Amino acid sequence: MNPIQLNKQLEQFLLEDIGTNDLTATTIFPVDEVGEAIFLAKATGIVAGVAMIQATYQSLDPTIHVVLHKKDGDHVTPGEVIAKVIGPIQVILTGERVVLNLLQHMSGIATMTYDAVQRLQNTDIRVCDTRKTTPGLRIFEKYAVTCGGGFNHRFGLYDGVMIKDNHIAFCGSLEKAIDQVRRKLGPMVKIEVETESKEQVVAAVEAECDIIMFDNQTPEIVAEWNELVPHTITTEASGNITLKTIANYRYCGVDFISLGCLTHSVHALDISLGGI
Amino acid sequence: MNPIQLNKQLEQFLLEDIGTNDLTATTIFPVDEVGEAIFLAKATGIVAGVAMIQATYQSLDPTIHVVLHKKDGDHVTPGEVIAKVIGPIQVILTGERVVLNLLQHMSGIATMTYDAVQRLQNTDIRVCDTRKTTPGLRIFEKYAVTCGGGFNHRFGLYDGVMIKDNHIAFCGSLEKAIDQVRRKLGPMVKIEVETESKEQVVAAVEAECDIIMFDNQTPEIVAEWNELVPHTITTEASGNITLKTIANYRYCGVDFISLGCLTHSVHALDISLGGI
Amino acid sequence: MNPIQLNKQLEQFLLEDIGTNDLTATTIFPVDEVGEAIFLAKATGIVAGVAMIQATYQSLDPTIHVVLHKKDGDHVTPGEVIAKVIGPIQVILTGERVVLNLLQHMSGIATMTYDAVQRLQNTDIRVCDTRKTTPGLRIFEKYAVTCGGGFNHRFGLYDGVMIKDNHIAFCGSLEKAIDQVRRKLGPMVKIEVETESKEQVVAAVEAECDIIMFDNQTPEIVAEWNELVPHTITTEASGNITLKTIANYRYCGVDFISLGCLTHSVHALDISLGGI
Amino acid sequence: MNPIQLNKQLEQFLLEDIGTNDLTATTIFPVDEVGEAIFLAKATGIVAGVAMIQATYQSLDPTIHVVLHKKDGDHVTPGEVIAKVIGPIQVILTGERVVLNLLQHMSGIATMTYDAVQRLQNTDIRVCDTRKTTPGLRIFEKYAVTCGGGFNHRFGLYDGVMIKDNHIAFCGSLEKAIDQVRRKLGPMVKIEVETESKEQVVAAVEAECDIIMFDNQTPEIVAEWNELVPHTITTEASGNITLKTIANYRYCGVDFISLGCLTHSVHALDISLGGI
Amino acid sequence: MNPIQLNKQLEQFLLEDIGTNDLTATTIFPVDEVGEAIFLAKATGIVAGVAMIQATYQSLDPTIHVVLHKKDGDHVTPGEVIAKVIGPIQVILTGERVVLNLLQHMSGIATMTYDAVQRLQNTDIRVCDTRKTTPGLRIFEKYAVTCGGGFNHRFGLYDGVMIKDNHIAFCGSLEKAIDQVRRKLGPMVKIEVETESKEQVVAAVEAECDIIMFDNQTPEIVAEWNELVPHTITTEASGNITLKTIANYRYCGVDFISLGCLTHSVHALDISLGGI
Amino acid sequence: MNPIQLNKQLEQFLLEDIGTNDLTATTIFPVDEVGEAIFLAKATGIVAGVAMIQATYQSLDPTIHVVLHKKDGDHVTPGEVIAKVIGPIQVILTGERVVLNLLQHMSGIATMTYDAVQRLQNTDIRVCDTRKTTPGLRIFEKYAVTCGGGFNHRFGLYDGVMIKDNHIAFCGSLEKAIDQVRRKLGPMVKIEVETESKEQVVAAVEAECDIIMFDNQTPEIVAEWNELVPHTITTEASGNITLKTIANYRYCGVDFISLGCLTHSVHALDISLGGI
Repeated sequence: MNPIQLNKQLEQFLLEDIGTNDLTATTIFPVDEVGEAIFLAKATGIVAGVAMIQATYQSLDPTIHVVLHKKDGDHVTPGEVIAKVIGPIQVILTGERVVLNLLQHMSGIATMTYDAVQRLQNTDIRVCDTRKTTPGLRIFEKYAVTCGGGFNHRFGLYDGVMIKDNHIAFCGSLEKAIDQVRRKLGPMVKIEVETESKEQVVAAVEAECDIIMFDNQTPEIVAEWNELVPHTITTEASGNITLKTIANYRYCGVDFISLGCLTHSVHALDISLGGI
Repeated sequence: MNPIQLNKQLEQFLLEDIGTNDLTATTIFPVDEVGEAIFLAKATGIVAGVAMIQATYQSLDPTIHVVLHKKDGDHVTPGEVIAKVIGPIQVILTGERVVLNLLQHMSGIATMTYDAVQRLQNTDIRVCDTRKTTPGLRIFEKYAVTCGGGFNHRFGLYDGVMIKDNHIAFCGSLEKAIDQVRRKLGPMVKIEVETESKEQVVAAVEAECDIIMFDNQTPEIVAEWNELVPHTITTEASGNITLKTIANYRYCGVDFISLGCLTHSVHALDISLGGI
Repeated sequence: MNPIQLNKQLEQFLLEDIGTNDLTATTIFPVDEVGEAIFLAKATGIVAGVAMIQATYQSLDPTIHVVLHKKDGDHVTPGEVIAKVIGPIQVILTGERVVLNLLQHMSGIATMTYDAVQRLQNTDIRVCDTRKTTPGLRIFEKYAVTCGGGFNHRFGLYDGVMIKDNHIAFCGSLEKAIDQVRRKLGPMVKIEVETESKEQVVAAVEAECDIIMFDNQTPEIVAEWNELVPHTITTEASGNITLKTIANYRYCGVDFISLGCLTHSVHALDISLGGI
Repeated sequence: MNPIQLNKQLEQFLLEDIGTNDLTATTIFPVDEVGEAIFLAKATGIVAGVAMIQATYQSLDPTIHVVLHKKDGDHVTPGEVIAKVIGPIQVILTGERVVLNLLQHMSGIATMTYDAVQRLQNTDIRVCDTRKTTPGLRIFEKYAVTCGGGFNHRFGLYDGVMIKDNHIAFCGSLEKAIDQVRRKLGPMVKIEVETESKEQVVAAVEAECDIIMFDNQTPEIVAEWNELVPHTITTEASGNITLKTIANYRYCGVDFISLGCLTHSVHALDISLGGI
Repeated sequence: MNPIQLNKQLEQFLLEDIGTNDLTATTIFPVDEVGEAIFLAKATGIVAGVAMIQATYQSLDPTIHVVLHKKDGDHVTPGEVIAKVIGPIQVILTGERVVLNLLQHMSGIATMTYDAVQRLQNTDIRVCDTRKTTPGLRIFEKYAVTCGGGFNHRFGLYDGVMIKDNHIAFCGSLEKAIDQVRRKLGPMVKIEVETESKEQVVAAVEAECDIIMFDNQTPEIVAEWNELVPHTITTEASGNITLKTIANYRYCGVDFISLGCLTHSVHALDISLGGI
Repeated sequence: MNPIQLNKQLEQFLLEDIGTNDLTATTIFPVDEVGEAIFLAKATGIVAGVAMIQATYQSLDPTIHVVLHKKDGDHVTPGEVIAKVIGPIQVILTGERVVLNLLQHMSGIATMTYDAVQRLQNTDIRVCDTRKTTPGLRIFEKYAVTCGGGFNHRFGLYDGVMIKDNHIAFCGSLEKAIDQVRRKLGPMVKIEVETESKEQVVAAVEAECDIIMFDNQTPEIVAEWNELVPHTITTEASGNITLKTIANYRYCGVDFISLGCLTHSVHALDISLGGI
């Protein structure tokens, strides 16, 4: 992640929670009371975002010290220490909730991604994310997906073209839509096409687009359509595939399966601060 | 919600997704191609955040027009129209994902909150949220909780005092902790105390704190401890209470039950844009 | 004070004064000319904001060194040294005016607050501030009030409810206004009611609001009305009470007296930079 | 004032006061309840900043309507209407305090400036301000000075050079200091010199600086030194001149008298919102 | 261009030039003095950025009216009117310089790009830009390139991979570098390789990268190497190609020629404001 | 340059180029792979902005180390080392393009300025810049002008008055325009008048303005008009003077010649990063 962007957002998160002042910590603890605390896992999963612990506390107080016991992508089980924090107790408590909220959210994503990857049992199919992310958290969520063994689809509307049904309808045909885009874009932009019929798959192949997505199809149909595409074009299955159904797509042969649920329906991984 | 804060955040969300430009919409559709589209529910639940549709699109283009068919807190079922948008198709598509991501997230929270409230079956107990929110989204998430019939606990570290075990340990006793806080704070700040034993409940009552939280206790113990507290002090049950267990607390007599899951483990309500 | 919020504002203050460049200091002094200077009191009062000296200079140059001789809340008399600064002379002079403007303003507030507190002669009545602060400076001014021995009323419209005459008029009665607010707010928000008649005081007591303010009344009336309020409800006298009149309220029995003048009519405490 | 800078700051002021939400106004008044209110003077003085009323409310709600009854620089007496506001009552009340705090502060400055000007009784001497302003409010305060009939000295360290004793000491002589500055600066920057002796005045005249300030001198000495300066060089008296002493300088012959108190010790002009 | 990003930057440009106030326009012209003025070309070229005229003035005053006589990409000759502005003269003059500086810069880029395109005489080779842009102006400069008939290479380090000599050296071979990148990146990122020898070209072809750049080679060598690349891989000539030498590459067969000079050595197109 | 303003802008430049992440450097190089690289000149010129190398890299990583071999204003020839950078290779490469784009741009300006100064052959005439700068880069460009031996004209509309033909026309006469400005402005603002006829020069002299500009005149006319102005008023020749024609103005006697081309038509000085 870009450290400048990251730090700007962490500061926003801290401002949101602390506001004018932490009324409790500043009235209870003297400024110079030093202590230590540990972030520990209370559930089984994959941890993601441990660098946030250090970065968040540094924004509050550059003298605070963080020792990492786990790195991103590591498995954790209940009771395992993720990191130790040493510094003013006031600051440790003031930053606690922001660190936990972010760490739990990112680790929840990594854990679900890892689960999805496991269900594909070492086939060559890669799991990837979508743009269905929580507003304002895309860089954190997309990074967490990679910690769980997944891959990142485009980051936004600016780094890739995705041609859907309404674009095709407006242009008259899939070929015309691709052609119109290509006449305007430079060399570094990939063009993906959403297909909903065998005819569209064939048209997309002929138009030599970069990626073909099979939208909302059964594993059998995905497998059949995937056979129509030469290896120079990337294929992707997408649309309402979940943890429960992904295993059915294990042998469909596509390069990528994308899952919106990885980021739009996150279940936080339970982590807590202890030992103060 | 404060409109200035709201609009600043919506702009950030749009910048995150659009970046330098929407490569697809701007190459496919002419700037002046006007159309309309509808946001429609694809699942059953409570809708929250419909004002975001208008506010988000206005940030992109002040000429765009939004007609709301549902208001916050309304029930929706699959196929029901939430809002209609009329304006340049380019802009409708460019803003689509941000609007959907936010609306689905907020409606997911409202739906879960409503579910929790229903499980209490019209007792006087109120459901409330916590600070376990997604970083950067607190005003949106806390508002969504109210759309589902819930109430807001404090917004941050700045608008209420919460005395926990580590504060009590440091001060020597619950009484001393409350006393120390009280000597420094003005008239408008409430003091809540987390209690983990009957002795602490009694001490908190004697110290005349404003709210007593029974942390991580069974419904039976909560009910027992609640009897010890005069009606001038608010009571709250908290700690690992979920949708599955909340009904067990139906008759425990507290004023509030707070649920972290309402905001840390959100399941997006399925909503889509159609009809272009 | 929240260090992130504080530093953001100090940077704005420096940008306001320095703009594109300090034309004088940068043309006179070489970058590497090091020296020291002292901030010294030129009047008698209470100093507030000494941490701003370090924080402001750090924003300009992390190598600069500040030694504090006084701490917030200390009395100073003309000629006493508040702090010594060691570092590049260019930077010492460039930051001088911002530091002085802020320190003088905050110390002026602390001094006036201390004066108000003294005039109450150790009764249990606490002096507190209002929202009549200088725009953009609320966290600095409210902090300065505490340095002078005062307390903070609510920080804004978001951390407390204040029901006034126009709210009561709209709702039909004081009881209805309180009831309406209570049906919507969570457990951590206090409700204060402004009262202008004995009937309103009685109604506010019956409605069990958290704080009752006696608005714009003589000390005798305040004392009389205060007798009507049980000790579980906080009382406050407010409205055109100044340094000249506060002593008259010494025995009125309220918990708090709030003074708008502490922050809306500040007289800067004279402090200067010397010794370069 | 630059409207972009102005609006950015007004938004900050509103965010400071409103925060996450106006808990009182939004729970009492329905969104669509429309009404009107008036800003009225409660003391005698000069009003400044009436455009802030409109600009502040527009930031909250573009539909709100403001009718001005007074313009900047106008005299007001208790009971006179300054402006009428028509729009949603919720918004009128939410913005009330920010508008009043700013308007009272600016009008306080204009009133004191007007007073200072009056005490000079139509001599040609102009009253001007200094950089001793409240941090973050310089554009508002300097504008208010002009509403009261005063003039603006430099806005910051970037739009004028001021050579003081420590610069002179470092360079070895006043002439050398001026020469050093002149060798580096372009054509549009004026150079002012603070003088504390007749010798320095003579040296400053010979060095053909643009402005000579007589620092901290009696009216008699100012008058004497002023005679030494040709009319092509501007003269300024400064240093601890207040409303009480300014009349003594009435006949000293300088072009400008600068007063720090205009902005560092502001007494708010009493203004209130009524009529809802 | 993303309107939100665009407007934020235009506001920064206006703040840079106007600062605290436009001292000349506001002292000469009354606020309500209305007039009109025209932006007219004073040289021959291609105009780019006409939408900036409206957008910039709108930031200062929403009532100002702009009528465009030219659209982006149009040829202009000396004396031709580009746009007419109607509104307060104060505002027209205050915004003049920012509008002209941006319009002249963008039109200078469009003109140079158009010139480069013309020198290729309708071959299929496309002219494109680089990341050698003026800091802070990338979206404006890349847009201007398209107005002149050019295409955009990647916008930054985030929307495409470019493997250069130092990456290859570190990884041990071109193949290993490509392989390492591919193991980590998702489906939407293109990989370009800079090649400096025929062996590297062959290796890049075998590794099936998306784009091959021939760096700093003569037209003859570019043509020779281009023959080695199948049509499914895009080719690009780059490195010190200028307006003077581009015609020599007319028949080298690549898909794109990229020119750093389009954005790092811009010659402003002369445009002025007249007719007030 | 103001370090706070400088660092804010450098962060913006880095965000523009890096965006969400540097896809190439972060996938090729391990985080802890350390190395060094040199910035070296590839053309002859004057270097400007070397402090940007350190400041830019510090924003990305405080541990990076920069050793400067040249200082601003130094001559460089092809192959000379400007600076050496030691630190994580990932970071060195991620910041490379922003540093180069800024350094090349600033050095291009310094080189052109130096060239202009040389063409005046040690006469007393000073070369200065204008407000025709690249939007957003004024502090960098004006600083670069001084590195080449030039001087800065006003920085914006806020730090000097420039009376032009349309102001004079509106006021009725040059005298009236000056008089109107003078009645409103304080002591630190200089007034410059653009003159286009001998009559205007005479009128400007009589009005005792601070600077007289001879706009768009031949060297002979400039010399003739310059004789009419006493030495207490600064004179400036301006308007379409370029590197090619400046030598003709060598003996015209003015104090300043201003050149728009220094900043509106910059030719980047070729600099590259090598040695990784």
